[in-house]
Amino acid sequence: MTKKPLILVTNDDGINAPGIRTLITIMNTIGDVVVVAPDSPQSGMGHAITLDSTLYVEQVFIDDGPQTEYSCSGTPADCVKLAIREKLSRKPDICVSGINHGSNSSINVIYSGTMSAAIEAGIEGIPAVGFSLLDYTWSANFEATKDFVKTIAENVLRQGIPNGIVLNVNIPNISKEQIKGIKICRQAKANWVEEFDKRKTPQGRDYYWLTGKFVNLDGGEDTDEWALENGYVSVVPIQFDLTAHHYIQTLNTWNLK
Amino acid sequence: MTKKPLILVTNDDGINAPGIRTLITIMNTIGDVVVVAPDSPQSGMGHAITLDSTLYVEQVFIDDGPQTEYSCSGTPADCVKLAIREKLSRKPDICVSGINHGSNSSINVIYSGTMSAAIEAGIEGIPAVGFSLLDYTWSANFEATKDFVKTIAENVLRQGIPNGIVLNVNIPNISKEQIKGIKICRQAKANWVEEFDKRKTPQGRDYYWLTGKFVNLDGGEDTDEWALENGYVSVVPIQFDLTAHHYIQTLNTWNLK
Repeated sequence: MTKKPLILVTNDDGINAPGIRTLITIMNTIGDVVVVAPDSPQSGMGHAITLDSTLYVEQVFIDDGPQTEYSCSGTPADCVKLAIREKLSRKPDICVSGINHGSNSSINVIYSGTMSAAIEAGIEGIPAVGFSLLDYTWSANFEATKDFVKTIAENVLRQGIPNGIVLNVNIPNISKEQIKGIKICRQAKANWVEEFDKRKTPQGRDYYWLTGKFVNLDGGEDTDEWALENGYVSVVPIQFDLTAHHYIQTLNTWNLK
Repeated sequence: MTKKPLILVTNDDGINAPGIRTLITIMNTIGDVVVVAPDSPQSGMGHAITLDSTLYVEQVFIDDGPQTEYSCSGTPADCVKLAIREKLSRKPDICVSGINHGSNSSINVIYSGTMSAAIEAGIEGIPAVGFSLLDYTWSANFEATKDFVKTIAENVLRQGIPNGIVLNVNIPNISKEQIKGIKICRQAKANWVEEFDKRKTPQGRDYYWLTGKFVNLDGGEDTDEWALENGYVSVVPIQFDLTAHHYIQTLNTWNLK
């Protein structure tokens, strides 16, 4: 009998979020699951790590599933570090993060706690995938995601991913029947046009809420935004070598001394 | 007379850190300076943004310089967003972030609040540079950084940087005379091998401190780590399109449906 794969599951919405509960259920059908996830929502945490504060990790029992679970006071990246160094008996065969409540397509990857956990695992040489559903609500319906998540995770386990690459998977918020399939994409050029909602405290002090409008600046049909708008699951291979290699030559012509 | 450039200054060590005070002094010799920086240290914040909490921004007067300064309760990325939307009369000609107390070379760029501020400005189409000195202490001596920071900022203002690219500048912690010059580099393959320092609270509950050892896995002589170890200032052009373009073709052979 083949040994079952060891699967590390984490997220950024917190260990009680419906998205990670769905992901755990799916992963239990593939291998031995260990969960190390934040004890509270960490959305928008980017690749934050906890340097100036203590970290707590407690074993928790949330449902009757066969997985082992730990709740952690830190960020998604902290969870992965703690899992690898303190909680796992060996290097996991895959790390899956999510399923995020809300998009991590295009530029959102930069702000994403879900993807930072996957990237942290990638840095450790673990094949890693972040999954996100385009529904920000806590009551999001993850039914349509299940087969796609399983297919992609199984393929990653079978085929492997080279060091330095992590997969960013986004799933449109439509029914399973409406989803046309999976598309390999590049990250769309897009950004957020922020609008700050300026208010006054009861004591008269100004404060702001960050709000904004997402703007896709990219007309390409090979992008994640195009795929999602057209009913496909998007898969973007991303890398954490951020070097803009093509620009090194130009910078050399500046003759900086 | 040529119009003076408008310079946005920020950092992640907080508005009172010696590193940003040095950067402000240097930038005052180049243009009109507006500072929007965190009111407290934000190291290791990665590209975190504040979604679930209010943001405060207050004008402050820290020294007698000609700059205008605002202290902000948010992350470095929040500071840049607030500066652009709420505090600046026009799009700045450059955004400089730092000077960070400690290295942001190689994989550290991923965890860096300093670089996340520069990247946020880059996303907004503003030429941006993050500066870091390889000395983590609050009493770091920034004297040797001054001419290099000025040279690089002036070159960025003169030559421009294409959309999508941001500069990551690291400066070795040696005297100005010992620094051999500036090298354009790629990001070294490196990681942190974390060690968690496990302790008990007075009440007997386990907790952890994140500590670790930096490991350079890259033998190349074209990397930022090599440059810094050999007495050069490293300049790495980085990009926030994280797509691993070269891997798209391979993923397509998986025939995911």
